[in-house]
Amino acid sequence: MDILKYFKFEDVGKRLEDLETPVPVIDIDVVLRNLTRWQARCDAKGFANRPHIKTHKLVPLALAQIELGAKGITVQKLGEAEVMAAGGITDMLLTFNVVGGHKLQRLADLMRRTEIKVVADNADVLDGLSHAAAQAGRDLTVLVECDTGAGRNGVQAPEAAAVLAKAIDAAPGLVFGGLMTLPKNGARGQMAAFLDDAAARLSRAGLDAATISTGGSPDMWKDEGLAHINEYRAGTYIYYDRSQVAAGAAAYDDCALSVLTTVVSTPTTDRAMIDAGSKALTSDLLGMEGYGEVRSLGGARVYNMSEEHGFLDVSKHNDKPKVGDLVRITPNHVCPVTNLFDKVIFVRGEEVLGAVKVDARGTVQ
Amino acid sequence: MDILKYFKFEDVGKRLEDLETPVPVIDIDVVLRNLTRWQARCDAKGFANRPHIKTHKLVPLALAQIELGAKGITVQKLGEAEVMAAGGITDMLLTFNVVGGHKLQRLADLMRRTEIKVVADNADVLDGLSHAAAQAGRDLTVLVECDTGAGRNGVQAPEAAAVLAKAIDAAPGLVFGGLMTLPKNGARGQMAAFLDDAAARLSRAGLDAATISTGGSPDMWKDEGLAHINEYRAGTYIYYDRSQVAAGAAAYDDCALSVLTTVVSTPTTDRAMIDAGSKALTSDLLGMEGYGEVRSLGGARVYNMSEEHGFLDVSKHNDKPKVGDLVRITPNHVCPVTNLFDKVIFVRGEEVLGAVKVDARGTVQ
Repeated sequence: MDILKYFKFEDVGKRLEDLETPVPVIDIDVVLRNLTRWQARCDAKGFANRPHIKTHKLVPLALAQIELGAKGITVQKLGEAEVMAAGGITDMLLTFNVVGGHKLQRLADLMRRTEIKVVADNADVLDGLSHAAAQAGRDLTVLVECDTGAGRNGVQAPEAAAVLAKAIDAAPGLVFGGLMTLPKNGARGQMAAFLDDAAARLSRAGLDAATISTGGSPDMWKDEGLAHINEYRAGTYIYYDRSQVAAGAAAYDDCALSVLTTVVSTPTTDRAMIDAGSKALTSDLLGMEGYGEVRSLGGARVYNMSEEHGFLDVSKHNDKPKVGDLVRITPNHVCPVTNLFDKVIFVRGEEVLGAVKVDARGTVQ
Repeated sequence: MDILKYFKFEDVGKRLEDLETPVPVIDIDVVLRNLTRWQARCDAKGFANRPHIKTHKLVPLALAQIELGAKGITVQKLGEAEVMAAGGITDMLLTFNVVGGHKLQRLADLMRRTEIKVVADNADVLDGLSHAAAQAGRDLTVLVECDTGAGRNGVQAPEAAAVLAKAIDAAPGLVFGGLMTLPKNGARGQMAAFLDDAAARLSRAGLDAATISTGGSPDMWKDEGLAHINEYRAGTYIYYDRSQVAAGAAAYDDCALSVLTTVVSTPTTDRAMIDAGSKALTSDLLGMEGYGEVRSLGGARVYNMSEEHGFLDVSKHNDKPKVGDLVRITPNHVCPVTNLFDKVIFVRGEEVLGAVKVDARGTVQ
C-alpha cells in the first residue's frame, strides 16, 4: 500500500537537524506496520475494525486505515467528525453523548452527509437525538453505552441497557444499533458477562444488538472476551507510546511517534534541560514514573517539567548530551501530545518527508 | 481604564447557555482587578512589572498590562515573542536559552523590530547570540539566568554567574544586562543570598547588573527577598487558578477563568460526567487532589479524567447536577489550559461579551 499518496507534505528540509523543536516526529513505516498488523488481527478474529482517530486527528491516516480494511472510524467529538467528514469519510461512530442545542444542530448537519452513528447512556439525551433525526429527515442509529467496569460513562447494569435500548427503539427517528463499551483495562471477562446478560435481555425483548463494540489499545492483543464482540475501537495503536509499552501492548520499536527536542542547558552533570515541557509532552503520567523517556539514552527519563522545560535525568549516562543536541522523547501518552501541535512531521527513518497540519486539533468542541 | 477597547469580540450570543462547551470563560472585571492590584503592589515596592504572557497569550491583555504600568512583557518562546511583536509590543524579555539556527535567525528578525532581551545560562549559547546580533546589526542585551534553588535552568553558583557575565561582556555584539531567576517557591531568602553574592562579584569585576529579575505568582505577595530585585515576572496572577488559591496567593473570587462544561451523563448518584477531560483541563496536578473543582457545587472535584471526559464527584451534594446542566470548573493550572483552546470567551458576570482567538497558542516553537 502506498500510504504516502494520502499526504501533501509541507517541505521543512530533509534532515532532523533542519527542524524546529519541539515537534512530534512520526515514522510512516512504523505507522504502516502498526496499522497492517492490527487490521490482520481484526480480520483473523472476524470483527470489524473501527479505529479511533482521536490519536492522530489526521484525514490522511484515517483514509489509510480505511483502505487497509477498517469499516469506518470512531470519533470522540463533533469537531473531529466534521473534519473527517470534510475529508470524505462517511462511516463514523461518535462515542460521546450529544447534549445541547448547537451540538444537536451540528449532528443533524453531519447526518445529512455521512452515516454517523452515536451512543447514549441515559434517556435524557434521547429527545435531543430524536430532534436531530427529525431535522436531518432520516433515522439515527444509537448504540447503548455500557459501563462494564471502567466507571466512566455508561448504563450500570444489563437491565438498564435493555431498558434504554427499548426507549431508543420507541423514540421517533431513532434506531437501536447495539451495545458499546470501553472496558476496564484487563477486565474483559467482566465486560463479556455484562454484554452477554444484556444481549440475552435484548433478545427476549425482540431487539437485535447488531453491533457489539469494545475498545482500547492496551488490551487489544488479549483474547479474553473477544468472542462476545463484533467491533473493536482502538486509537493509540497507530503510534503507541510509553504507556502502551508498559502495558505490554507494544515494543519500543513499535512507537512511531517521538517528540524531537533540543538540549538547551546542562546545569549539572546529572541534569539536561530540553525545550519540551507540559505544553509539548503533557503531564499525563498514567501510573508511570516520569513524563517520557529517551531510547537513545538508554531510557533516560524526563523526571520533571515546567510548561516549556523538560528536566532530563542523565545521571546514569557517561556520554552526556550537550547543548544543541537533538533528543527524541517517547511520550507517556501520545494522544494528547498530537493535540498540542498545529503540525506534525513525518519521517522515514532519519529522512524527513515533511510537515502536515493536524486536521482535527483544536476544532470546535 | 477601558480594557474592552483592546478587544474585537466575535459574537457568540449573550448568555452562557449560548456557548458550546467545553470552553474557557474569563471574567474581564476580575482580570482588571487582578492586574490593577498587582501593578499597585509593583509600584509600591518600586520594582518594574514585566508580566509573563504565557498564561493568557493574548495581545489585548498584554496591551492592557502595559497601559496599566507594566514596563514590558516576558515571553517563554520565540513564537510568543513574534505574536506579541506583531501586536505592537516592543519591550520584551525572552526567558529561555535560544539554541539552533532557525531560532537564532528568528531572534535576529525580532531584534530588528523590537527591544527584545534574552537570557543565557551557559557559555555554549553565546556564539549563537553573537551571530544573531551581527545579523541584526545591533547589540543584544543578555541576562544571566541563575538557579537559585528551583533546580531548573540556570548557573549553579554566584561564581558561575560572574564568569558568564564576563563572557557575555566580552562577546561581540552582546551586552550584559543583569541577573534573572525563577526562585524555588517559598525560598526567596535563598534567592536573595545567591543574587547578593553574584552582584558583589559583578561589582568587583566592574560589571553592572542593571536588571535583577525574579518571578512567580505563588509568592508574589510575600516580601522576603524583594529588596534585592528590581523587576518581577508573573503570569498566572492575571487569571489565578486552584493551585494559586492552594498556595495562598489568591482567593477563589480572584479566579477569572473557569472552564464551562456540560454534564453529559450521571451514571450513578455519586458521579456526574462532564465534557471536559485532559484535552480541556490538562492533567496538571501541582500536588493537589483532583483535576479541578466546581465552586457552585461546594468544591466538588474532578476526581478522574479521560481525554474528553471529566469525572465529577458529587457524592456530597444533595442538589445533584443533571444531564444538560452547565458546570464551571476552576482548573488546577490555568496556563496550559488556555494553550489548549483556539478561542476563549470573555464575560462580565453572567453576560457574555464574545470570543477571541488565543493569539499565541500553537505558534511555532
